[in-house]
Amino acid sequence: MLTAFSYEASICTHGIGTYEITDQINRLVVKSGVRTGVATILIQHTSASLILFENADPSARADLEHFLRRLVPENSAYFTHTLEGPDDMPSHIRMVLTTSSESIPIAEGKLQLGIWQGLFVYEHRHDPMQRTLSVSIIGESG
Amino acid sequence: MLTAFSYEASICTHGIGTYEITDQINRLVVKSGVRTGVATILIQHTSASLILFENADPSARADLEHFLRRLVPENSAYFTHTLEGPDDMPSHIRMVLTTSSESIPIAEGKLQLGIWQGLFVYEHRHDPMQRTLSVSIIGESG
Amino acid sequence: MLTAFSYEASICTHGIGTYEITDQINRLVVKSGVRTGVATILIQHTSASLILFENADPSARADLEHFLRRLVPENSAYFTHTLEGPDDMPSHIRMVLTTSSESIPIAEGKLQLGIWQGLFVYEHRHDPMQRTLSVSIIGESG
Repeated sequence: MLTAFSYEASICTHGIGTYEITDQINRLVVKSGVRTGVATILIQHTSASLILFENADPSARADLEHFLRRLVPENSAYFTHTLEGPDDMPSHIRMVLTTSSESIPIAEGKLQLGIWQGLFVYEHRHDPMQRTLSVSIIGESG
Repeated sequence: MLTAFSYEASICTHGIGTYEITDQINRLVVKSGVRTGVATILIQHTSASLILFENADPSARADLEHFLRRLVPENSAYFTHTLEGPDDMPSHIRMVLTTSSESIPIAEGKLQLGIWQGLFVYEHRHDPMQRTLSVSIIGESG
Repeated sequence: MLTAFSYEASICTHGIGTYEITDQINRLVVKSGVRTGVATILIQHTSASLILFENADPSARADLEHFLRRLVPENSAYFTHTLEGPDDMPSHIRMVLTTSSESIPIAEGKLQLGIWQGLFVYEHRHDPMQRTLSVSIIGESG
């Protein structure tokens, strides 16, 4: 029999960068008891996002950050949405270029990620933030 | 008991820009009676896309549009897919850089979006269009 | 009654480019017997991705490739993650700018894609690779 579970998770960030949450979400999968199904994770913010990314070598995440900083520079002359500071508008654009929600299949009671694939919150603001995630887990517990 | 619902939605667009559909999708969630589960929304086109974005201040959407117009300019010299006009190829690229489908958790009978987070159709063509969305809602009605 | 199915699929790629897998996934939908529900497809790699894209005219895919090659050039001076070759770091960035998972509604036993919309594996490495996909199908078989 299938069941649907709804969870909330949160993470404290301390500046721009990637924060792995794979274990945190896998613990919710275990808690739900779902063996076969799907987990949907949504970050409930518009200045932080989610990425599935290489979780072995931190240099890959550093280069990604370098790329995004060049692609979406702070203080671009045409920005008008600047009330909250120079990192506000870039944060919204970086969020759109990455993603806000991920759906990950569950089999044998685990997220079916690849060997070097991790789920990360990507914080796009400089200031410390508390970010909340809405997590849906649907599937067969049997 | 879980149930799966399938809906079609549509929206008329009148030129490049963002069109919020949060209320439209929330009405389908109410109609389905699902209290805990997930909604999956797919836009069935390759020259329009979906974004989850800041829905309070329109200046953020204006700056995003400005950014994308600079990143993917019309009339790039190397474009070969130009039969349908100068906005054709940029529309496909802008669609890939944003997204075609979003999965959003449902709890207490509502999409679990953040406070300033809205779901938008992002139209990438100049001409008026009718865009169709396929919507799946799965969950517990209890 | 709803059921949840878990499948693995794979595809051999031979160099950078797009490989359509719409039929392969539709065959899994038929195999599952699900008539109404949702299919979630995840590519279990960090140097290849998924896109929903125009599947009629190959020139659109060629122009997309041209765009990405210019946006994320090999041998960028600031790349430090270069052990696996010049196409390694660009492959991770191109993966983030596209997507790793897609959720597609199922109705009447078929993926609800638009007429010219296909699901593609986007390979970002030069060498031949075997890529695996985890596929979740949840829904009503009735």
